[in-house]
Amino acid sequence: MPIAEFNLINRFFKQKFPIRKDVVLGIGDDAALCTAPAGMQLVMAMDTLVEAVHFPINTKPEDIAYKALAVNLSDLAAMGATPAWMTLALTCPKVDEVWLRRFSQGLLELATAAEISLIGGDTTRGSLTVTIQVTGFVEPELALQRNAAQPGDAIYVTGTLGDAGLGLAAIEKRITLYSEMQNYVESRLNRPTPRLKEGKQLIGIANACIDISDGLLADLNHILTASKVGATLNLENLPLSKALQSIDRKTAVELALAAGDDYELCFTVPANKKPLIAATRIGTIEQQLGLRCLDKQGKIFASEKYGYEHFS
Amino acid sequence: MPIAEFNLINRFFKQKFPIRKDVVLGIGDDAALCTAPAGMQLVMAMDTLVEAVHFPINTKPEDIAYKALAVNLSDLAAMGATPAWMTLALTCPKVDEVWLRRFSQGLLELATAAEISLIGGDTTRGSLTVTIQVTGFVEPELALQRNAAQPGDAIYVTGTLGDAGLGLAAIEKRITLYSEMQNYVESRLNRPTPRLKEGKQLIGIANACIDISDGLLADLNHILTASKVGATLNLENLPLSKALQSIDRKTAVELALAAGDDYELCFTVPANKKPLIAATRIGTIEQQLGLRCLDKQGKIFASEKYGYEHFS
Repeated sequence: MPIAEFNLINRFFKQKFPIRKDVVLGIGDDAALCTAPAGMQLVMAMDTLVEAVHFPINTKPEDIAYKALAVNLSDLAAMGATPAWMTLALTCPKVDEVWLRRFSQGLLELATAAEISLIGGDTTRGSLTVTIQVTGFVEPELALQRNAAQPGDAIYVTGTLGDAGLGLAAIEKRITLYSEMQNYVESRLNRPTPRLKEGKQLIGIANACIDISDGLLADLNHILTASKVGATLNLENLPLSKALQSIDRKTAVELALAAGDDYELCFTVPANKKPLIAATRIGTIEQQLGLRCLDKQGKIFASEKYGYEHFS
Repeated sequence: MPIAEFNLINRFFKQKFPIRKDVVLGIGDDAALCTAPAGMQLVMAMDTLVEAVHFPINTKPEDIAYKALAVNLSDLAAMGATPAWMTLALTCPKVDEVWLRRFSQGLLELATAAEISLIGGDTTRGSLTVTIQVTGFVEPELALQRNAAQPGDAIYVTGTLGDAGLGLAAIEKRITLYSEMQNYVESRLNRPTPRLKEGKQLIGIANACIDISDGLLADLNHILTASKVGATLNLENLPLSKALQSIDRKTAVELALAAGDDYELCFTVPANKKPLIAATRIGTIEQQLGLRCLDKQGKIFASEKYGYEHFS
């Protein structure tokens, strides 16, 4: 049965969020009404964060909201799309006004920066679970996809890899860091940066693109499988932050390859083009299927499947 | 962290669902790509069902899926919209292939009937929670809303009221019914009928429309508040199924007014028009604010707020 007091939350969220001009009717009726720009394709994604699975217990509510939106915006970024509208399904154990105000504030912060309107959703009682659905636009036939990498393409990633994994290891006290580095990697874990500007700039340049949520090996493997190609990665070229550089090299490389939650873009660019955005070249697409990892000594790690367990 | 085995589920769902022609890219990339029909407004809704809150523990997986989609389609029906696409966020405690196959089957059944494509979503590990987001179309300025009821409008409802509430009472053994009636009310609880056809036929006829999820009093009250009007309900006219007629009259009326989960449409029609669909007239919109309930003896139940607790 619906819980009457939970209806208050919709009003709470409604008051805070700016409404785009293309939102005809926002929160408050049975459904929202929106006008899509003529001639554009709609791009739609939906991701869920579950407490203790996708974020640690005791994560700040503003960070939970920020991340829940960021991981969805990252999916739009990976398609080269421009965000427009979102719906929010928030399941939480009780009505805690302070918690909700902080959650709402974190959502508002990123929504404002990304110019995306909250147009509706649902609030229910249960274990803390946040699902956000986002809709954006892209010009027809220009969306970046996973399935068009070509042999000879250079493989790039934005930003640095492994920070979120190190952040989680630090929070769980598996690794000890200086406080400045700990703050940095926790921020990377809790507030990933959706690479929206970069995604749009890669349209017409990248052959294939994906966002790194499951880890570089797993997500690059999605490109390889969909494109029916293979690749070699040069591990010495992996972009590592100072925090990653401060820890044991083997652990750092493992985190960069397989920890996931980075929300950087991994994309491939044909040899005759340049990415024109800040990105690091980490390898090459090849005809030979499978994913090969070269270290400094030229040693090859077979990594035919994906993920940490297959790498180590 | 994402759970690798959960990615299998996307492939599982992908294979089953028909793809509409306006779906350019469905499940399998970072986001889906769709083409909206030119000149139409988009109608978007999102609802969550949580185990033990919105459906009893041990509800059949095919019924959980059916209901999760039905309650969302009901929101589109209340706007007079035509459904097109949905995204699914399924959180469940473990990967149970039999359970998933049955869940998928229930979703497929209603999706096929409603001609709606599953275009994406997320599968995560946690307490059983199902969020569905639906997108449909409506012609600009024709969507049915809550805020346009006028004094003198007749108030109608589709179908019968209180069946779902009686179904829950029977499952929880608070009320004993003959098995035929028990089957009927359980079916009404688990597989509500989204009134999509009726909603579309009410465009240009109804001044205001809402679907009954929280109970007639609560949802009619949403119309009254949004439209700044009041109403009188004639309780003897409430449409009750044989199952409701078989129980104590006072309980039946309470269930019909306040139990919720009916997913019938409640709508208002100006005096010079007829609804042209199967529906029962239950009252009249009035200028005087508040909601008044008349029984056979003409006695007035004040019901200024909403819900069962205020009625009794």
